[in-house]
Parts: sequence; C-alpha cells; structure tokens
Amino acid sequence: MNQNRLLARYRIETAYSLDHAAGVIAGEQSTGTFISVPGETASLKERFGAMVVSITETGEVMSPSLPGGEVPNNHDGVYKQGEIVLSFPIENFGPSIPNLLSAVAGNLSELQELSGLRLLDIEIPQEFSKAYKGPKFGIEGTRKLTGVYGRPIIGTIVKPSIGLPLDQLEKLVTELGLAGLDFIKDDELNSNPAFAPLEKRVEVVMRAINHVADKTGKKVMYAFNITGDIEELKRNHDIVVKAGGNCVMVSINSVGYTGLTYLNKFSEVPIHGHRNQWGMLTRCPMLGMEFTVYQKLCRLAGADHMHVNGLNGKFYESNESVVRSIKACLEPILDGYSSMPVVSSGQWAGTATDTFKAAETVDVMHLAGGGILAHPDGAAAGFESMRLAWEAAVQGNSLDNYANKHDVLKKAIDKFSK
Amino acid sequence: MNQNRLLARYRIETAYSLDHAAGVIAGEQSTGTFISVPGETASLKERFGAMVVSITETGEVMSPSLPGGEVPNNHDGVYKQGEIVLSFPIENFGPSIPNLLSAVAGNLSELQELSGLRLLDIEIPQEFSKAYKGPKFGIEGTRKLTGVYGRPIIGTIVKPSIGLPLDQLEKLVTELGLAGLDFIKDDELNSNPAFAPLEKRVEVVMRAINHVADKTGKKVMYAFNITGDIEELKRNHDIVVKAGGNCVMVSINSVGYTGLTYLNKFSEVPIHGHRNQWGMLTRCPMLGMEFTVYQKLCRLAGADHMHVNGLNGKFYESNESVVRSIKACLEPILDGYSSMPVVSSGQWAGTATDTFKAAETVDVMHLAGGGILAHPDGAAAGFESMRLAWEAAVQGNSLDNYANKHDVLKKAIDKFSK
Repeated sequence: MNQNRLLARYRIETAYSLDHAAGVIAGEQSTGTFISVPGETASLKERFGAMVVSITETGEVMSPSLPGGEVPNNHDGVYKQGEIVLSFPIENFGPSIPNLLSAVAGNLSELQELSGLRLLDIEIPQEFSKAYKGPKFGIEGTRKLTGVYGRPIIGTIVKPSIGLPLDQLEKLVTELGLAGLDFIKDDELNSNPAFAPLEKRVEVVMRAINHVADKTGKKVMYAFNITGDIEELKRNHDIVVKAGGNCVMVSINSVGYTGLTYLNKFSEVPIHGHRNQWGMLTRCPMLGMEFTVYQKLCRLAGADHMHVNGLNGKFYESNESVVRSIKACLEPILDGYSSMPVVSSGQWAGTATDTFKAAETVDVMHLAGGGILAHPDGAAAGFESMRLAWEAAVQGNSLDNYANKHDVLKKAIDKFSK
Repeated sequence: MNQNRLLARYRIETAYSLDHAAGVIAGEQSTGTFISVPGETASLKERFGAMVVSITETGEVMSPSLPGGEVPNNHDGVYKQGEIVLSFPIENFGPSIPNLLSAVAGNLSELQELSGLRLLDIEIPQEFSKAYKGPKFGIEGTRKLTGVYGRPIIGTIVKPSIGLPLDQLEKLVTELGLAGLDFIKDDELNSNPAFAPLEKRVEVVMRAINHVADKTGKKVMYAFNITGDIEELKRNHDIVVKAGGNCVMVSINSVGYTGLTYLNKFSEVPIHGHRNQWGMLTRCPMLGMEFTVYQKLCRLAGADHMHVNGLNGKFYESNESVVRSIKACLEPILDGYSSMPVVSSGQWAGTATDTFKAAETVDVMHLAGGGILAHPDGAAAGFESMRLAWEAAVQGNSLDNYANKHDVLKKAIDKFSK
C-alpha cells in the first residue's frame, strides 16, 4: 500500500471505451476542467492528478443503465461495463472524510461519458487514524456494558414506532426489561416529537430501566434516538448520559458523517448507527456506493453499532448481501475500528439459524420488533425464543428439533414462520 | 395547507397494486412493523399514522427498474408506475430537517414491495421557519456585496482544480480581479490540502483581492472552500472572515444538512453551496430525490448560493432539467429563503444566450472555468465575452450579431463553440 495515494475501486458503464472513460474520471476528480488551462503542467498533473491503476472489462449491455449518457459519433450500440481502480494523492484532501468524498465521489456520477458509476471500495489511508479515532466501545465495550458474552446481544425496537404515550412506554420498557432483554432501541422515527420529548422519554425509560435493574441486577442497554441538528446532538447526548443512559442512537444519513464525527468527539456511551435513507444511495446497482465503503466511513466517524438489515427481512436486499455487510463490519479497518453489526428488520427466532450459518459469528446485535413483542406468550417468551434459537444454531441443532423441547420456540415458529 | 400535516409526493413502481404499495409505504413510515403489535390502536394510527392522500397511475413497465422487488403470487408480469401523495403528522418529527428525512425518506427505498421510489416534492411546513432562518444574504445580499445589478454575477473557478502553488494562485487571483471578475471560487476538490492550507490560501488570495480593490475600487467576492468536519467549519469560517473574506463555500453533501445548518448559525458572509455527490442521489429516475426537494432543504439550512449545473454543460443532465433547477431556486419557500442559483460546468459566453432564453432571469451566478481562463486573449477577455453575451441576450440580440461588433466575443465563439 502506497502511503501517499488512496485506492478507489468503481463499477462503470460507458458508451466509450473503458480506457477513455477511466481517463475522463481521473481528470474530473483532480486537475481537469473541460478544456486545458494555463498552469496545468505535466509536473502538476503527475503530483496531484488521479491515476488509473487498472481497468477490467466485465461485460456489455445494449441499453444504458442510467439516462443522459452521451454516445460517441460512431457508437455501435454497445455499453461496456467494467471495474476500474484509481489512485488519488492523499495530500489533495488530507485525513478528512468530507473532502475524501468530494474527491472519490464528487461529480463523477454526473459525467455524461458514463451511463453508470458506483463506488465499490476504498482503501482507508493510515493517516486517517490521526483524525478519526473511531468507536470508543465497539464489540468489546458493548459486551462489557451489557454483560452478554458468547451469543448475540438480543434486543427489540419500541413499537408502535411512534405515538406511544409515555406511561405506556414506561410500562413496555419495564416489561421488556423484566423479560430479560439485553437491548432496546427507539425507532428511527422517534427522536424528539412534541408528544414524547426526549427529556421526558429519558426520564420514564430510565425509571423503568433502574426499576428493572434493582429487581434483576441487569441494566438493559437502551439506545435513545438523539438524531437532530448539531447543537441538539450535544444537548441530547448530555440528557441521556446525565440520566444514567448507556447508549445513544443517530440516523447517520440524517446527521451526516460530520454529525457522527462530532458526536463521537464527546460521547460517553456507545453510538448506535441507524442507516435509514441508505437505500437511496445503494439500491441502483450502477449508481451510489456499496455498503463496504459506507460502513468504513461510518466506523471511522465513530459508529459503535451499524445496522445491516436482516436475513429474510422485509427489505429488498438479498441474504447474501446482508451477510456480506455483516462480514464487512467485522473486518478490521487499520487494525481497529471495531463496530458491532446490527441485524434487524423482519427478524424473529427463525432467522437466527440462517444468520449464524451464513455469517458464522455471534458478534451481532439481533433485533426483533414484532418477533419479540408479538410472541403469543408475550415479550419474555419472544426474547427466550430468540436466545434459544441462537443456542440451537451454535450447537448445530435444528430449530425444529429444539422447538420440540422448548414450547416458546414452537409457538414462535407457529406464529412467525411463513 | 393543513398546518398539522406535511405533504410528500413520490414516484413509485410496484408489482402490486398502487393502492397496496401506498399503504405499505404509509405504514412503514409511521406506526407499523411487519406484524401487528399490542398498543397499535386505531386512535394512535389516526393521530400519528401517515395517510395516503392521492394515488395516480402513470404507466406500466414489463421489467422492474430496481432489483430485489418482490412480486405477488399471481403476478401478471406488469409493474405499475404512479405518483402518490402522503401526509405525515408534523408532530412526529417537529421542525427538524434530520428527523423530517427519517420520516419522508427513511427505509422507503428499501421496501421489497417496491421496484422504484423517488421523492418528488415536499411541502415545507410553516413551523420550520422557527427552527431554520435560512440564507442571511441570498440574491439581494450577494448583489449588494458584489455591487452587480441587472445582470448575472459572472465568475470563475480557480483552475487547475488542485495543485496550484500559492504564488501562482496569488498571481491568478490578481489577474482575474484586474480582469474585472465579480466572483471567484475554489474548486470543490481544494479545501485544506497540505500544499495549500486554507490559512495560507486565505492570506495570499486576500492580499491579491485587496491589491486589486485598491487599484479598481472593486472587491471581488471569493468563495473559500471551507469544507471539513464540524469544528473545522467554525475555525475555517473565522479564518476567512478575520482576513476580510466575503464568502465561504461548502460541499453540502460532504458536511450534511446539519453541517450547513450549523455553519449558518454563526456565518457572517454568504454560504456558497456546492452540490457535488448529488448525482448519486438523483441520476436513477426511480430512486433518490428530485432537485426540488434537495434545494428546499439546502435553502432552509442556509445556502445563499446553490449550484444547479449549466446548460450545454459537461454533465448528463438535460437543459430542461437545469432550467427547472434554476426556477426552483428562485421560487420562494414560505415567502423567503432567497438563494441564488449558480450556473456552472462547461460554461462560456455562448451558454448565456440559452440560459437567459430558457430561465428568463438574470438572477444567477454564471461561472466559467475554461470559458474564462482559456480565452485566447486571456481572462479579462473571457470575462468581457461573458458580460457581452448576457447583454446581448437581455437586449434580444443574437450572439453572432453581437460578435460582429465585439472581437472578444467572436474569439470566444471560435474557441469554445463545438
């Protein structure tokens, strides 16, 4: 790895040759304008210019994936697809996520020579470790705070997502705490609404959590959604910490990488990173970026927990893609930046088996909303069914076998399996 | 306009009926989970739930625009496209851009019932004016600072984009200032790189600008790129203002809406909003969002100037779309939030004619990099050719006619027209 240059890998599609397109991309993102200008010397280009490292053709299509692409005069109707690797001088942007993004993404997706461009991966330069300290808790810190080892941290989301009156919230959190849950989070829709302002929510939730802790000795981790503008992040974080809270959550795309970085400068509890709005940046295969890139930036910025969707969930993503995301989060960046993947969406006991089989890890948070709350025998049974499902998976037992011995598991299967 | 609910309009595509899909969207973004849970009462749904206001079918396609969509068992192979309007209770998110985004965008693009979803427009609730004061300068303030009235503010971008040594930068800015330019900006790639740290750049640029002002009486507006993390925004802004600078620029998608909002709390000069990375959010017609939505949020957050690409530019966008963007920026939000559209990318004198004809306004910044710097007779001639082109356009003269009387215009046409 060249210490002075950053590597970025892209999927591209073009009506031109891949060589030509790669050259346009490199020029746009470094020294170029649409016409040569005075001062753009060869030595300047060499030092500050992006360079094309490799070009691999992967296929051809007969119609463009994205609109507005230009075609050459003699176009044969074929659009070439390929992967290219560019290298950028790190000194152009320094250890700065905001300026890294202007360099490696910038205007590229708008170039008319392209009918597709997607950022597949970037190699984080060592220099970034000076500017970004990353998660303060990560997997180890989260296990320590929850006291859960050898299995996933099992939790739920307060449902209904929004609108639950404070007295019912207190009751629900008490019930969930007594049910043995490791973790509870606010829904991403529920941050600081008038009917349940954060201050009040913290008050009733912490009362419930402390009440439960007095009885059981276990302090549930609760991720309070503190998403808001910059000053609110500080104010809201402090409200949570002052009340003895042990986790805060932000919608990363709402606060931006800069908001996350800012929060991480003073945060005293793990930061639960929710990725809503991420679909806009990734669902079109010829645009946006891969989760690999996104989670690297989020972890640099300080996300102790990273949402990755769930297997067999309610979203469009394939199981294979979810598993790749889990594994990406568990891959160290510059030997560190530990972050716990959060498996969520349409989850219940039955999805534990597939998750363990495919991801081969218990270092995840496994969240079920309906899958715990809507268990026929209540939340305690819902939680127990999840715990048992993981126990079975780790032991190599089949879910059905295990269900024969455990009624709560059987009832979960009856209720939730399609 | 109902004061309690926000309207959001979407383009959607689904293998299900549009009715079914609209219902799923409304449920996901308010009270729902994948299965009914205790507490999700009818009265709670009525108060906090999103509501489907209207559904309009617009067409059908035989293959899905985005991957991963689910199809019903009896699917006939047809994907329905349509526009839907939803209303959201404002009390769910309050006057908060970050939480508004979690509500109106959230997880929607990931729903498997959809093979396409794009946010087309939102109606900004009056309540937001309490939390977001918007641009402090806008069109009027920018005209006052530059002293330019009755025509666009004509400017350029420092090129080469990156790598220009400080002594050459000083020389270039002096030359451009003496050439009569109204406005100069850093490239979005050039924020705080090691070879030209912002402090040094401000020093040499302001020396040049003051030198020119002493000679000509005109103080060029220079947008220093201060893009960076949150603390850097404050630090960098203060460096610029302390040195007598009169504009700062940020890459909005790099600093986030929250970063822009934060900067706008203390900024003492206009904020020049660059939209690089925007292509990732908009180029796929069935994903992301329209510029209409984006510029509303950016203006709420405080962008005095908003980049909109340029007609006949080097990017994929159609002229019609660029013109719509210009007009969107000039449309008041809640009777205010004035922001000056910045027409840029592949611009030169010749693009002025089309811009004026289509957008019917002179209230734009018109930026040309090569179109000014690479004029055969130098930057002064480049600037003059732009000014003359607008003069001709406003007077209803053709560019060629005008070029017969003005040599700099003729030379611009010879050099830049394709």
